[in-house]
Amino acid sequence: MSQLQEVGFEPDGSASPGVGTGSRCWVLVLPRAAGEENRQVDSMSVGGTNGPAGCREKVLTLDSMNQQVKKVEYAVRGAIVLRASAIEKELQQGMSKPFSEVIRANIGDAHAMGQKPITFIRQVLALCTYPQLLCDPNMPEDAKARARKILDACGGHSIGAYTASQGIEVIRQNVAKYIEKRDGGIPSCPDNIFLATGASEAIVTTLKMLVSGEGRARTGVLISIPQYPLYSAAIADLAAVQVNYYLDEEDCWALSVDELRRALRQAGSTVLPGCVCVINPGNPTGQVQSRQVIEDVIRFAAEEKLFLMADEVYQDNVYAAGCQFHSFKKVLFEMGPAYSDLVELASYHSVSKCYMGECGYRGGYVEYVNLDPGVKAELVKLVSVRLCPPVSGQAVVGIITDPPQPHEPSHHTFQEERREVLGALAERARLTEEMFHGVPGIRCNPVQGAMYSFPRFDIPPKAIAAAQAAGQVPDMFFCMKLLEETGICVVPGSGFGQREGTYHFRMTILPQTEKLKVLLTKLKCFYRDFVAQYS
Amino acid sequence: MSQLQEVGFEPDGSASPGVGTGSRCWVLVLPRAAGEENRQVDSMSVGGTNGPAGCREKVLTLDSMNQQVKKVEYAVRGAIVLRASAIEKELQQGMSKPFSEVIRANIGDAHAMGQKPITFIRQVLALCTYPQLLCDPNMPEDAKARARKILDACGGHSIGAYTASQGIEVIRQNVAKYIEKRDGGIPSCPDNIFLATGASEAIVTTLKMLVSGEGRARTGVLISIPQYPLYSAAIADLAAVQVNYYLDEEDCWALSVDELRRALRQAGSTVLPGCVCVINPGNPTGQVQSRQVIEDVIRFAAEEKLFLMADEVYQDNVYAAGCQFHSFKKVLFEMGPAYSDLVELASYHSVSKCYMGECGYRGGYVEYVNLDPGVKAELVKLVSVRLCPPVSGQAVVGIITDPPQPHEPSHHTFQEERREVLGALAERARLTEEMFHGVPGIRCNPVQGAMYSFPRFDIPPKAIAAAQAAGQVPDMFFCMKLLEETGICVVPGSGFGQREGTYHFRMTILPQTEKLKVLLTKLKCFYRDFVAQYS
Repeated sequence: MSQLQEVGFEPDGSASPGVGTGSRCWVLVLPRAAGEENRQVDSMSVGGTNGPAGCREKVLTLDSMNQQVKKVEYAVRGAIVLRASAIEKELQQGMSKPFSEVIRANIGDAHAMGQKPITFIRQVLALCTYPQLLCDPNMPEDAKARARKILDACGGHSIGAYTASQGIEVIRQNVAKYIEKRDGGIPSCPDNIFLATGASEAIVTTLKMLVSGEGRARTGVLISIPQYPLYSAAIADLAAVQVNYYLDEEDCWALSVDELRRALRQAGSTVLPGCVCVINPGNPTGQVQSRQVIEDVIRFAAEEKLFLMADEVYQDNVYAAGCQFHSFKKVLFEMGPAYSDLVELASYHSVSKCYMGECGYRGGYVEYVNLDPGVKAELVKLVSVRLCPPVSGQAVVGIITDPPQPHEPSHHTFQEERREVLGALAERARLTEEMFHGVPGIRCNPVQGAMYSFPRFDIPPKAIAAAQAAGQVPDMFFCMKLLEETGICVVPGSGFGQREGTYHFRMTILPQTEKLKVLLTKLKCFYRDFVAQYS
Repeated sequence: MSQLQEVGFEPDGSASPGVGTGSRCWVLVLPRAAGEENRQVDSMSVGGTNGPAGCREKVLTLDSMNQQVKKVEYAVRGAIVLRASAIEKELQQGMSKPFSEVIRANIGDAHAMGQKPITFIRQVLALCTYPQLLCDPNMPEDAKARARKILDACGGHSIGAYTASQGIEVIRQNVAKYIEKRDGGIPSCPDNIFLATGASEAIVTTLKMLVSGEGRARTGVLISIPQYPLYSAAIADLAAVQVNYYLDEEDCWALSVDELRRALRQAGSTVLPGCVCVINPGNPTGQVQSRQVIEDVIRFAAEEKLFLMADEVYQDNVYAAGCQFHSFKKVLFEMGPAYSDLVELASYHSVSKCYMGECGYRGGYVEYVNLDPGVKAELVKLVSVRLCPPVSGQAVVGIITDPPQPHEPSHHTFQEERREVLGALAERARLTEEMFHGVPGIRCNPVQGAMYSFPRFDIPPKAIAAAQAAGQVPDMFFCMKLLEETGICVVPGSGFGQREGTYHFRMTILPQTEKLKVLLTKLKCFYRDFVAQYS
């Protein structure tokens, strides 16, 4: 007899009958003859009507699937975050915990942590979405003007139409003007700008263009350690070779060309290095590289004939006194034509970070400098396969690169909101640094920029043994315990890479100030107890 | 002396000084010493300050780049569309042409062709975007309720927050209910549904999971010819093996299992077939497959142990009397557990087609049936790298799968608008068929569904010779001439695949009815003259 049976799905994808933490489904459960479990059904027996359930090996299995995908890892949405979601459901179901909510300090998701959207951005977007609002007297005129400009550039005046695959031209013009202004007048051309589904897509696309060769000629990609795991994930997916260079924790995560050279030397003849990636301001490490470092990296790229990828999505997130954001492009052009005519550079920006935090819109762009025209044509073709980036995300790019001007009605509010967000982040960067300071066993570099602290912490040998016994790396063991006991969700340093024998975690500075204080206090107490427990 | 020089960029990516058709930029042009063109600069000489411009070979060139990308082709945004854009700019610049506008009948972009967005979709989206509108008395209550439901499921109640990588859970629940209703109650589980950045992303992701092996064990993917070039592009990108099966033009583009078997047999031992893809209703061919055909394909997939990919994005676009959309999932379950417990199926849907036409939002989903739990966990991990699909696109998926109910204020308008769009498309499908009927040299199958006609047309031998002389395939030669002389942009059949020696073009049925009549009349006249010219 067949029957309907309620089945739960666990976060790991497995099904469990009866109560579970995940979603519930009714599935038709069919009778199964004794001894028919796991029998291989060949193509002849399939024609029958009494075939048993689930007894043929699947076509797509862990063994048969794309093995590169299995090598992909992405810690900021990994095991710890799946467990955080499960705990949230347990709390909803009334399970008793020593905390009332999970604080997600694992990912740079500003709105989720209570940051308010910038009013002007949302007004323009609402006007683009539902143009009947263009008659609404409550909507400011500058927002209406921006919306009309975007709609005029859309097919059928609708943001529901596809756009050019490279992105809407007037928006790319805005971006070019924004970059020119940022870089003190150095020219930027809309034709070198590609809008994208977030900076992530643009980064993966550049890497896809770059990776080629087999064996020793396979493309090597130099990435910082610690790194943002998008890079290692894309490198694994593309079967490229990851070449690690280490940032100097003792020197506030500075990048040194000596270390780049060491990494290149060590990769030796086993790979053909093609590209060097720099994240500035740093993720997960929160440092802001000096102008000198950037110049050194450019010189290194020129000398070693490497394509330069500059991940500059935190370009407005600079907090520390004496620190300043220097774009790779500006420094490149200031170094003169010997470099600016030679070095191939891609610089990425996003609407997800800075003061906007509009992660959900998946908007971003890349500007290419010195890209070979033939390669550019191939790139245009490649991005055309995904048709176009989401138009609402393109619109956000268009708005932030064409913000209200001093004479316009929304200027004051826009600037106030921007200042407030960046001011609060600066305050929380300072607070984080302060709170970790003086905790025995924890050392944290200043959060000069971006949205993260990446403190190093000692783990007692007994805790390391306990982690090994639990089959976990020590920092994962710590972060899982922290989550289970306090509800605080941070990401183990092993997900970003760290020097052998050191342990870190990445924590965002995004929780609202009062919540961040509570979080930091809880974290300090937890760490103290953890050390005591395993001493 | 360096100087600023205006440079134009041509659609092929090349730069041209002075007047051009593309965008204009000012670039700094630097002096170049005589004889320094194309000199290779080694890493030692880069350090100098007088390095010449553009004389080092680039890192990323057509020779060094990922060679798989070069094999990618995507006709619906290919050469003819680049030329169409250029012609539009020429018209804007006042250039004299035998027509006043380009009619883009090359791509299924409904809004661009004048289709109006569904009011309810845009109201809910505007409310989600700018929640201050929840106080607007002009917004209907059901739209507000939907917006609140979506916002409640977003981090910080903002669609600017990231969502779960698989998509917002309440939206996946909507989708599951929608599928259950569509399929007469066959259960659908939200855990098997993955929201995506358009159906395209979901299709490419499934293929990425499936493709593995080397040499003779490399995964073969069976696709229909003619096909939608997303498939061939993804197959090229993944270095999978494309295995063609031909649809039967004489039988209204029906799919026959005999032909599937022939294709499989012919692929023989050179490849390990892993997957069969079916597009129903058909793109570019506009047919609606019968229930019997779908049953046959399922049986074939079971017998040959193939993963089944069903591209069902046109599921509401069925026009012809006697035709009906049968989902692969429904037929699979109606065939009983011998199949429904065995066959691994992925079915794709999109907000870009049907009555919505919201292409710009890049919303879509895939439902997996019988996916291995371990593979599913790998898939969850893989999609987490791109963080999440655009939330506004997810919201559109949520809205169309939870439309206004009969007792709700927006129900009448929603249903009226839906009926109007689908009615107009049905009218244009009929009109297209009628207009091609009786044109000597053109044969067009009925447009039973989807958004395209794919007429076959004879090309006189002299035109074939002229095409060869121009270095073009004959149908591209025809379509380019059509574009240059009438402004009508259609895509050559060679971009989709066609039997050797036959010629087709794909034309959408999306232009508004009066414009479509003009277009079809012009096309008929042009074809008559073309044949006369080359006879």
